[in-house]
Amino acid sequence: MLVDGRRRVVIENLKPEIDGGRFPIKRVMGEKVVVMADIFADGHDSISARLLYKGIKEDGWKEAPMKLIENERGRGEFIVEKVGMVRYTVEGWIDHFKTWQRDLKKKFDANQNLKVDLLIGAGYVEEAAERSSKEHRKKLIHFAEVLKKEVDVKEAVSIALNEELTDLMHRYPDKKFAVAYEKELSAVVDREKALFCTWYEVFPRSCSPEQGKHGTFKDCERLLPEIAKMGFNILYFPPIHPIGRTNRKGKNNVLEVTPDDIGSPWAIGSKEGGHEAIHPSLGTIEEFERLILKAKESGIEMAMDLAFQCSPDHPYVKEHPEWFRWQPNGTVQFAENPPKKYEDIVPLNFETEKWQELWNELETVVLFWIQKGIRIFRVDNPHSKPFSFWEWLIKEIKKDYPEVLFLSEAFTRPKVMYRLAKVGFTQSYTYFTWRNTKRELIEYLTELTQSKVRDYLRPNFWPNTPDILSEHLQYGGRPAFMIRLVLAATLSSNYGIYGPAFELCVKEVIPGKEEYLNSEK
Amino acid sequence: MLVDGRRRVVIENLKPEIDGGRFPIKRVMGEKVVVMADIFADGHDSISARLLYKGIKEDGWKEAPMKLIENERGRGEFIVEKVGMVRYTVEGWIDHFKTWQRDLKKKFDANQNLKVDLLIGAGYVEEAAERSSKEHRKKLIHFAEVLKKEVDVKEAVSIALNEELTDLMHRYPDKKFAVAYEKELSAVVDREKALFCTWYEVFPRSCSPEQGKHGTFKDCERLLPEIAKMGFNILYFPPIHPIGRTNRKGKNNVLEVTPDDIGSPWAIGSKEGGHEAIHPSLGTIEEFERLILKAKESGIEMAMDLAFQCSPDHPYVKEHPEWFRWQPNGTVQFAENPPKKYEDIVPLNFETEKWQELWNELETVVLFWIQKGIRIFRVDNPHSKPFSFWEWLIKEIKKDYPEVLFLSEAFTRPKVMYRLAKVGFTQSYTYFTWRNTKRELIEYLTELTQSKVRDYLRPNFWPNTPDILSEHLQYGGRPAFMIRLVLAATLSSNYGIYGPAFELCVKEVIPGKEEYLNSEK
Repeated sequence: MLVDGRRRVVIENLKPEIDGGRFPIKRVMGEKVVVMADIFADGHDSISARLLYKGIKEDGWKEAPMKLIENERGRGEFIVEKVGMVRYTVEGWIDHFKTWQRDLKKKFDANQNLKVDLLIGAGYVEEAAERSSKEHRKKLIHFAEVLKKEVDVKEAVSIALNEELTDLMHRYPDKKFAVAYEKELSAVVDREKALFCTWYEVFPRSCSPEQGKHGTFKDCERLLPEIAKMGFNILYFPPIHPIGRTNRKGKNNVLEVTPDDIGSPWAIGSKEGGHEAIHPSLGTIEEFERLILKAKESGIEMAMDLAFQCSPDHPYVKEHPEWFRWQPNGTVQFAENPPKKYEDIVPLNFETEKWQELWNELETVVLFWIQKGIRIFRVDNPHSKPFSFWEWLIKEIKKDYPEVLFLSEAFTRPKVMYRLAKVGFTQSYTYFTWRNTKRELIEYLTELTQSKVRDYLRPNFWPNTPDILSEHLQYGGRPAFMIRLVLAATLSSNYGIYGPAFELCVKEVIPGKEEYLNSEK
Repeated sequence: MLVDGRRRVVIENLKPEIDGGRFPIKRVMGEKVVVMADIFADGHDSISARLLYKGIKEDGWKEAPMKLIENERGRGEFIVEKVGMVRYTVEGWIDHFKTWQRDLKKKFDANQNLKVDLLIGAGYVEEAAERSSKEHRKKLIHFAEVLKKEVDVKEAVSIALNEELTDLMHRYPDKKFAVAYEKELSAVVDREKALFCTWYEVFPRSCSPEQGKHGTFKDCERLLPEIAKMGFNILYFPPIHPIGRTNRKGKNNVLEVTPDDIGSPWAIGSKEGGHEAIHPSLGTIEEFERLILKAKESGIEMAMDLAFQCSPDHPYVKEHPEWFRWQPNGTVQFAENPPKKYEDIVPLNFETEKWQELWNELETVVLFWIQKGIRIFRVDNPHSKPFSFWEWLIKEIKKDYPEVLFLSEAFTRPKVMYRLAKVGFTQSYTYFTWRNTKRELIEYLTELTQSKVRDYLRPNFWPNTPDILSEHLQYGGRPAFMIRLVLAATLSSNYGIYGPAFELCVKEVIPGKEEYLNSEK
């Protein structure tokens, strides 16, 4: 308990630090980390301090100076150079030599006798000589001798304060009683795209040039140049997996279906497979891999939807009934938000006793698509799965694939949205979709860019999504679409649209709602 | 590393919490601790939460409800009943029964079939029955049976939501996956005087009724009723120890002394003794103990000065030369703040290798005076000794004597003043002494009462001290003295004056300074 009581320096109020260091801050490669901290001690002694940082897999700390920017507050910075995790902290120590220099000057100006003071200073220099390299030792010992000699006081003081000696002493400080900040903090370093990207969302099944025909990955290939020309560098598809038949919903979410109804792509899983299968009408895995490569040629990266939920026909339901909730009448519990029912979806039960097996399986799904070449995931409804699951999953994946990005579709309460960002999501959807007036935009942007949020939440601005056709777009006509795009693209360095409904300024809604009429879902 | 992933609740942003729980908050007996925290989880399930608290020596937690005050923010409170340390934290859990009640109501209102839902609810009730007392088990089993029976749905719903069942279920919650806040936080609970007290400072050597004669403790006894009548409940003496002779300062801090000069009481220690001795001219230890008792009869508690520094004649200098700094010329280092010199004072060297022995000795001094009946210490210049020393000392003392109060004379930089409060000082001198205008007072009081400071710094407002005769008092005449007293006494629940200079409106200063001319120091 009793640490060395001679460590007198205090380092506190260090920033950036999220929730007392519980979560890492976020940066992209080449970005600066500016660290500030209150650094002080009892008494009037001078203090020196350094910022320490290192990649999580590196051994030794790198150092950057902490410079005093106001009373007892220091500032240092470093640039992150590699994708992965970085640690940083601050250390400070009483600098007796610096104190001595400062006081010597004052005493000299007041014409005081400096004989003893010069001897004290020489002692500091001799101690530094012992810590120094052979080359510097010679110089330091020489300085100490000059200080000890009874030469002209003015000259002695000028030597005591000279730059070479100051530099040498700074190089070999007496850190016997140095104090490190109580915590080592972390930064997650992503590739640049985490901070600068443009998303285009499209339903691949709608990409056929022939009216009424189910689109394919090959159809999508043809669209790539056009999407690239519009300035997008990420192409994101809603789920591309087989779609369940049981309780399939019809157009506009009606319960009655015809054999032609293709169902919601979020009702994942059928006898054709689950989260690692491809909907047969879209193409094969090989065709998807080909699309990934073709997209790359157009400067576009494919993003995949991670929707961890199942249709009642998903193979998991039979193979792992223990991952679902079962009702007293023996049926599986479907999704609901009373009084609303989503009979075509069965949620995974994260309170299952077999939660570890479930987590591992879901990790396997992510790794499966990483093997196929996917490095960006848009996560559907992350706020309906435990935070601890996401924190674990994203950390696990990033251990081996630090370049993977996760976009959180957290259209939910602010605290939940922010917590998801803290636990590891690279980017997050935001409330931009509903912020229209100048005042609303100023307030929201201030929150995102000036509050603590800035260190862990990277906003991604979407004027529309397949779920949301905002009132502004419903009534504002083409000018509204143009304004919203410009705002999204200029207020945030990450933005996206759901097309081609957006470019075509589609504005037909289900009356009284913000949902597209005859939506592609 | 992998904790149970089924613990879905998040508790964050808990207040009050100082520096991530590094320091305790402060309260006095009978005060409330109001705790707020963000409490939420993934999904839409209902959550229940409780505030937990206990005395540091108690085994089991006491509980208080956390009530929702806004979106996902809870509030709970408890009253501290005993002097000492109290711990507190918050726990929360997904409340499936509460969720079920809420959803049942919604489904009932939407005319949905509730057969399966009632069976599910009955299951929750049966589980609670297993956790319950014998008496309640019977009732719960009965409720479960009623829910399972196919009675009138309306009746079943009314039973499901009734108060008795709700109360019983609340009493036996399913806390299998309960989450506790990541930290247990602490509160230091002081006696009431820590928050409500009035100090009167006087130099006992000036208390003789006879002009020019050295006052004694007996002289002080005579003044007690008058001091009590002025409304003070603490009487504080500057150091009452023997005063050094070497380099003794004369009147108004001059270097030349006459044999009549009595020296500064802060130059502690002579051949008559050190910090555990009494200045012979003041009286004996017995007379001091008698004064303590006499004061108590007048409703006044004696406070003692803790000035951890020495005159060159202090017995420590000879007995423990290792506790001081020695210069290359063999002399002991006196106090200085270049170009100022304080030759009558030698500071203790807290960087000594024998720092543990030094700390222990200083603790012994405090315990010595506690044995004599002292429970309040005014600490001189705490900001010239390490924070870690004070944190240790105050904690050590309070372990056995939680009723002891420490007033920090931290007329120093804000961060240092605040840190001293954090590490344990009960009260602190403040900048009130120099806050005169309305705007200055509003700003300062807002900082003290509305910022985080409020939880750890108890301000003590002093219009004057032996060191400070503010400009306002120098030029404002008697009205200024009256105004400053009223402000001190009404803006803070702790205040004090240095008398009788204050009541007598003494305003003679050393020109250009804020120091009393011909001061008693």
